[in-house]
Amino acid sequence: MRHFFVLSLALNVSFILRSVFEREQGLNWFGFESEKERITQRTRLSVSSSHSSITTLAEAQDSGERIINLDHGDPTMYEKYWQQMGDKTTVVIPGWQSMSYFSDISNICWFLEPEFAKQVVRLHKVVGNAVTDGRHIVVGTGSSQLYLAALFALSPSDASEPISVVSQAPYYSSYPSMTDCLKSGLYKWAGEAHNFSKEGPYIELVTSPNNPDGTARHSVVNRNKGTLLHDLAYYWPQYTPISSPADHELMLFTVSKSTGHAGMRIGWAIVKDKEVAKRMTKFVELNTIGVSKDSQIRAAKVLKAISDTYEHVDDSEVGETFFDFSYHNMAERWKLLREAVEHSGMFSLPKFPPAFCTFFNQVSEPRPAFAWLKCEKDIEDCETFLRGHKILTRGGKHFGVGPKYVRISMIDRDENFIRFVKRLSTIRI
Amino acid sequence: MRHFFVLSLALNVSFILRSVFEREQGLNWFGFESEKERITQRTRLSVSSSHSSITTLAEAQDSGERIINLDHGDPTMYEKYWQQMGDKTTVVIPGWQSMSYFSDISNICWFLEPEFAKQVVRLHKVVGNAVTDGRHIVVGTGSSQLYLAALFALSPSDASEPISVVSQAPYYSSYPSMTDCLKSGLYKWAGEAHNFSKEGPYIELVTSPNNPDGTARHSVVNRNKGTLLHDLAYYWPQYTPISSPADHELMLFTVSKSTGHAGMRIGWAIVKDKEVAKRMTKFVELNTIGVSKDSQIRAAKVLKAISDTYEHVDDSEVGETFFDFSYHNMAERWKLLREAVEHSGMFSLPKFPPAFCTFFNQVSEPRPAFAWLKCEKDIEDCETFLRGHKILTRGGKHFGVGPKYVRISMIDRDENFIRFVKRLSTIRI
Repeated sequence: MRHFFVLSLALNVSFILRSVFEREQGLNWFGFESEKERITQRTRLSVSSSHSSITTLAEAQDSGERIINLDHGDPTMYEKYWQQMGDKTTVVIPGWQSMSYFSDISNICWFLEPEFAKQVVRLHKVVGNAVTDGRHIVVGTGSSQLYLAALFALSPSDASEPISVVSQAPYYSSYPSMTDCLKSGLYKWAGEAHNFSKEGPYIELVTSPNNPDGTARHSVVNRNKGTLLHDLAYYWPQYTPISSPADHELMLFTVSKSTGHAGMRIGWAIVKDKEVAKRMTKFVELNTIGVSKDSQIRAAKVLKAISDTYEHVDDSEVGETFFDFSYHNMAERWKLLREAVEHSGMFSLPKFPPAFCTFFNQVSEPRPAFAWLKCEKDIEDCETFLRGHKILTRGGKHFGVGPKYVRISMIDRDENFIRFVKRLSTIRI
Repeated sequence: MRHFFVLSLALNVSFILRSVFEREQGLNWFGFESEKERITQRTRLSVSSSHSSITTLAEAQDSGERIINLDHGDPTMYEKYWQQMGDKTTVVIPGWQSMSYFSDISNICWFLEPEFAKQVVRLHKVVGNAVTDGRHIVVGTGSSQLYLAALFALSPSDASEPISVVSQAPYYSSYPSMTDCLKSGLYKWAGEAHNFSKEGPYIELVTSPNNPDGTARHSVVNRNKGTLLHDLAYYWPQYTPISSPADHELMLFTVSKSTGHAGMRIGWAIVKDKEVAKRMTKFVELNTIGVSKDSQIRAAKVLKAISDTYEHVDDSEVGETFFDFSYHNMAERWKLLREAVEHSGMFSLPKFPPAFCTFFNQVSEPRPAFAWLKCEKDIEDCETFLRGHKILTRGGKHFGVGPKYVRISMIDRDENFIRFVKRLSTIRI
């Protein structure tokens, strides 16, 4: 009981402080509302004046009745940061702009907006998380499209049977269905990389840090005739220590998880081989004839704003830098989650080894965008168990492992996350 | 010689009048520049002050040296209209908006922005070109993505072999490669619908008005077990008389060809069957996890502006309505093209029967977005012949027919189109 009181008090204090800070910034604070209301309210944000319900949030007790949906990795945690930035990343697009299909016909990726490409390269240099010199950038409608484009580009076009696509379990739950959705004759999901024993060519997908479990990953098959595809969506300093600039053949990134702008549907690939970049471009052409220019323009502005604060381009007051904000938020959330898990005694979480981060210039532990929670005791189906407590998560079987595990989003809005840890900490058999 | 002089003079007069009009509107006029410069210049439009080169354009003689690229249907003709509209369709998007993946979780198509859906339905009611009552709207990254989503949704998932996809030739050149790109086990391009004799289920693609030849189309196979997919990208009053609201099982539309905003990559499907709408939504989810919210917001604003001018929502001066502008432009271009073809004597064009348009309330002839030009005399390969005159077009073989035909974009910028008709009119053996 004492533990719970201390936890609860700590939460309240952190909330009041944050809320006061936000009130000073003239921002709104959402009260508790249903999923649907949340979305509606968000669109009203710019017109509503003072919808502040600080007291509601700070004093509210979780009745356990409201559904807490942390199934998806919806990165709404980041809204608060971009609200604090005010109009620094506001885009204004006149009706007659960006009408053509083409962005830069001198580029292999002819639908890539040059300003977006420039800001991608610049941000990677600022963060030091990927090599871009001499590489090709291919933009996609989210990194999902680029995953498919990469499979298309890396598959032999004249093979008698589809190439095997493997990944070490637990792997991102959507990869099997994305891969096999159209029953392609070019490639085929072949599951857990450790069990892969077939001769001949294969594609190994390496997600690092890994979705769902946050671990640093390397290829495991290591045979010749293998091609590696690196999904580095979470290789950003708020989630993991940056050890060195990633330098792989084909690397995927996305704004959804780096800046939190999932609604833009913008991802990018950094590609060493020119022919692969050409084939990926061809896939996007046949799939969607390019990528929204509006979102590329907006993404460029957001990436620029982040780099600007680190390179002190803007003389005006910078405020909190993006990675400071997101690092501290993730660290605080992981602390609260570990406390709640300890208090409950029903669950366990992975431990991550600390490492030196070249970006923050300090040693720190990973703080993944998802918690990979294990139900202990006699609970066999963790997803069902938590659903009984009205907490929606994604069960281990979707990720190629057993049902004792669930994936939980750590990047939802504060009120949702706080309600989640409060409820989790009280769960008993 | 007299014909050519009169044609040339008419062009010059029409250009001077238009240029004067535009100068009065305080707009820019592009001079002659290369494809690449054009793109660069466009991005400078808002900052450059007076780049006017009226005299250059009006007096310029086509030296025949500059490459005229009308291979793609890049709808840049429409830029001028949206420039005239000034800031009526300017969108302003703050950095913290539209961050979530979700738009409306109560909708089957959970990534569909409600305002965009509303404006789609409203515009169809204003124009009278499609039934929307009781239908589902599915948004896509251009109608290309929705074509693939429709194939996925309409293919039996448990069939022993892929379903045949057929279309009457000439058909849109990208359909075969889009369909077979991934060697799907669900569906397979089976070519010319007239030659299709296989028993069992099939999907027939009906593009009406047709790309490339502008004709009104109906299904031709007409056997049971057939499913129809209607691509109505060009069923708008500037291109063809609207006879009645289209009322098919599955209809595809796109802003690229209706309003000219190809760079947005926004299309929509109007779907009768709920399960088909669900499966199409699933495809877009697996393909790109939704569709750019930024572009949906912008598209909504553009569609709204068009409907507003017809429903007199706005009290301020309306100016030219969108379909008046585009109708008159298309009519003028077809007139000039037919004159040039007649003057040259080397080519022929399809004739279109006039019909009553319920939107304009008058009888008129179709004015397709592409000209389907036939080389007469002994010219066997029209694409190669025109390339010899530095006119880039797309040859008939890409559309499933012979090389005597080429497809030519009628919706490029004025200067490109004018240079094209000037040059075409002078072509002799």
